[in-house]
Amino acid sequence: MVSPLIFERDVLYILDQRKLPFKEEYFLARSGSEVVHAIKEMILRGAPLIAFAGAYALLLDMRAGKDVLQTMEALKRTRPTAVNLFNMLSEMRRLLEDGASYEDMLNFVRKKEHEEKLIYERIGEHGSKLIPKNARVMTYCNTGFLATLGIGTAMGVIYKAFLQGKIEEVIVPETRPYLQGARLTVYELRKLGIPHKLITDNSASFLMSRGMVDCVVVGADRVVMNGDLANKIGTLQLALSSYYFRIPFYTALPTSTIDTERDTFGDVTIEQRSSREITSLGTCRITFEDTQTYNFAFDITPSRFISAYITEHGVFEDIKLALGT
Amino acid sequence: MVSPLIFERDVLYILDQRKLPFKEEYFLARSGSEVVHAIKEMILRGAPLIAFAGAYALLLDMRAGKDVLQTMEALKRTRPTAVNLFNMLSEMRRLLEDGASYEDMLNFVRKKEHEEKLIYERIGEHGSKLIPKNARVMTYCNTGFLATLGIGTAMGVIYKAFLQGKIEEVIVPETRPYLQGARLTVYELRKLGIPHKLITDNSASFLMSRGMVDCVVVGADRVVMNGDLANKIGTLQLALSSYYFRIPFYTALPTSTIDTERDTFGDVTIEQRSSREITSLGTCRITFEDTQTYNFAFDITPSRFISAYITEHGVFEDIKLALGT
Repeated sequence: MVSPLIFERDVLYILDQRKLPFKEEYFLARSGSEVVHAIKEMILRGAPLIAFAGAYALLLDMRAGKDVLQTMEALKRTRPTAVNLFNMLSEMRRLLEDGASYEDMLNFVRKKEHEEKLIYERIGEHGSKLIPKNARVMTYCNTGFLATLGIGTAMGVIYKAFLQGKIEEVIVPETRPYLQGARLTVYELRKLGIPHKLITDNSASFLMSRGMVDCVVVGADRVVMNGDLANKIGTLQLALSSYYFRIPFYTALPTSTIDTERDTFGDVTIEQRSSREITSLGTCRITFEDTQTYNFAFDITPSRFISAYITEHGVFEDIKLALGT
Repeated sequence: MVSPLIFERDVLYILDQRKLPFKEEYFLARSGSEVVHAIKEMILRGAPLIAFAGAYALLLDMRAGKDVLQTMEALKRTRPTAVNLFNMLSEMRRLLEDGASYEDMLNFVRKKEHEEKLIYERIGEHGSKLIPKNARVMTYCNTGFLATLGIGTAMGVIYKAFLQGKIEEVIVPETRPYLQGARLTVYELRKLGIPHKLITDNSASFLMSRGMVDCVVVGADRVVMNGDLANKIGTLQLALSSYYFRIPFYTALPTSTIDTERDTFGDVTIEQRSSREITSLGTCRITFEDTQTYNFAFDITPSRFISAYITEHGVFEDIKLALGT
């Protein structure tokens, strides 16, 4: 596996995911603001990975004697739905307020990183029990070793099921506009030697209607207390189709992704990204540059479409039970 | 409007839709086999337009003294679900068997073309009555003057409603992999001066869930007698979401698109297209060229998701009634 994030005191090496799958190239961030830039420019993505990038951003600025409260604020503005990042920053803020030294902070993050890897291992173990033999599993976006510091959430489940000999094939929707499925998940599956087929996002329902999908496992950007799920745009469409065609639909997530302070998403603002992401693809223009778009980054999937939540504590039909354990 | 097909006895000018929206360039077909090539290579597309291209292909070969029965067979193999083409070829075969001359055949096709244009006008008139004021209408793929010889099916409905001042905006899913929405429908809407927004296919459900869509109007490649609809891959996903969110979902079609000989699609073979359409976009590679895909060209939408069928004879909840008129 290729590591998406390598920290070496003065510099954070960030694997440039925009260049995958063709080039494995690192972006070097030497300050918090360079990490903020990397998150904004999608050099890295994935809610769990962003949380660690944020932690290392603070460490870079702390070592340089900068005002880390400002770094925190800048980080928070990058991805308003990434609860893992918010939690990480809160914990680090508390440590700082308790007078933690740079070394204390570094140890905290290293320990977190180790714990995080174990969490994905456990998610994978629990979730793999849900996967039937000869499974044709659909996943979405990218949730593996590129998005996390470990085997990943949904991809962790798939990986463990694969080691148990249960995966016939993984069906990967390409995940427009940024093509995380086509570029990153395909790359991960290839590295792991797991058989897979790429599809356009709009053909998922049809494959389901033809009995070509046994279950769906996705990650999560945020889950609120009523069980509703914020995740990559297109998740709702998959969940709704799975529900209709009676295909189990799972979300795999560390409990740190649960926003215990919100009962519902209510009127949460869904980030809209630049029209350019849709009107162009890399250097290829698709249509007129001034074409207007709706380019929502996330959507909200109601809990009724979710068969179960896979967390490090086990598999739960009700998200509240995942917290009680 | 730009004409997608111009016939001048020895040559059929076919607007090269692969180069839209940036270049308006014609491909010159001087024989039936060159028309077959154009259909296969997606130089033109759209079920109604393909039917006329087929008719002109026969005329080219008839004038050149070739065996037109062979031309017919080659044409039929290009698009197994394009019933308009099949009907057109059957009618022309009957005329030939009755001893029609080249001029008879040409007059037949010219007359057909005129009738066809009237049919779209009527579809537009009938369908526009279903569109509420200030409508935010979602459409799909491309069904306008590029796909037909007239104002089009779903686009005809939108165009008439626009002339009646009822369109607030048209929401256009990009329609992967070939991006007919982003490239062609956006081009048509721009030419017609109709306000529109482009979206990725995977965000349609979310817009529906947020009350941003008042109705959906799509075209049809084929409808069978139980009312099920074969149309561009992704139609099922839109129909299913519309159904769930109680948004009217209409298909607009000439009755010639109805396959009266089939009660259901049963085990109809859905054409799979090349993996390259998904792994590359124009000259841009998206992922590894040898990545395997499922690339179905069409999907099947069950009649229960379809609020009404808009034909030249009126609006019908049951497709059988459209034929009785």
